[in-house]
Amino acid sequence: MLEFWFDFASTYSYVAAMRVEKLCAEAGVPMRWVPFLLGPIFQLQGWNDSPFNLNERRGRYMWRDLERLCSKYGLRWRRPSAFPRSSTLAARVGCIAQDEPWGGAYVRGVFEANFGLDRDIGERAVIESILNGLGLAAATVIDSALAAENRGLLRANTERAIDLGIFGAPNCLVDGELFWGEEALEDAIAWARSER
Amino acid sequence: MLEFWFDFASTYSYVAAMRVEKLCAEAGVPMRWVPFLLGPIFQLQGWNDSPFNLNERRGRYMWRDLERLCSKYGLRWRRPSAFPRSSTLAARVGCIAQDEPWGGAYVRGVFEANFGLDRDIGERAVIESILNGLGLAAATVIDSALAAENRGLLRANTERAIDLGIFGAPNCLVDGELFWGEEALEDAIAWARSER
Repeated sequence: MLEFWFDFASTYSYVAAMRVEKLCAEAGVPMRWVPFLLGPIFQLQGWNDSPFNLNERRGRYMWRDLERLCSKYGLRWRRPSAFPRSSTLAARVGCIAQDEPWGGAYVRGVFEANFGLDRDIGERAVIESILNGLGLAAATVIDSALAAENRGLLRANTERAIDLGIFGAPNCLVDGELFWGEEALEDAIAWARSER
Repeated sequence: MLEFWFDFASTYSYVAAMRVEKLCAEAGVPMRWVPFLLGPIFQLQGWNDSPFNLNERRGRYMWRDLERLCSKYGLRWRRPSAFPRSSTLAARVGCIAQDEPWGGAYVRGVFEANFGLDRDIGERAVIESILNGLGLAAATVIDSALAAENRGLLRANTERAIDLGIFGAPNCLVDGELFWGEEALEDAIAWARSER
């Protein structure tokens, strides 16, 4: 089992999220989507913004790298006009989507909206149109994600991320072993295969 | 041409440095070693120490990751009892070694001393023993590295690193394109092949 821990606001999570389900399927490794929020984890590290905004040198490299990586993997890429975008609503829906057959398509749809189409995934209308595009009753799904019994899911994921020592995104978690970064995907899958 | 920009104090530079010359040779890509100092670059980013020491979560992950990467690539690994070590002397010698036939063996020898054998590469005696092990007149080489006409080389590399937007190590530089991190080695080599 490979758990894919991601934030919809994270650029490198986009690149990995578009690839991980197919790679796991090819390797015969079951996977699970785990959305969490980077914000509280950045705050733990003393940051009030993305490190890509706080550190200009690091940020400049990341934007060029993303362009190259999207070209390498054939992913749509449009540098978002706002970064990072609020990912809370998208992640709340992600929490109830993670065990649904449409979970993967939803995750990829949100990421592509943010980083391929420059849409504001913080807006309910954008999330609704993604859900509608999957043939779902968007309003019902969103209302369920925001319902009292589900509101604690995202917070619980983020708290578990803190306990796991997570400091960025994306991450693959395999048998307690953490693999950080989009480039660690293949290593994480290899680990899952050897640990089964 | 691939330029490999590294600091002897950097853990991920170790993993990449042990692999890069062989990978380039297999790909028919000429390469060049470029030692520089991360210290002034960390200072530019407001850090007075390695980010792996300043950020405990990031550091904890790095040490585990290094263990895994060294096992993956069959590299010696012993977590150094001091980190980061002073790499100035090793890098000064590296500056005059970079166009010598023994350059690669010297670089790998220093990295293995630091991260495979837990030796203090800041000590002249350690650098001497590495040079002696390569059949060189260690004292003569070190005196040349410290001579007035060569003392500016390391500073010039570090200043060029700053101009290039470098923020960490290792990096591969190919036709003005920067690839950061040990996991970007293969992408950098592929870029060099396509750009030739």
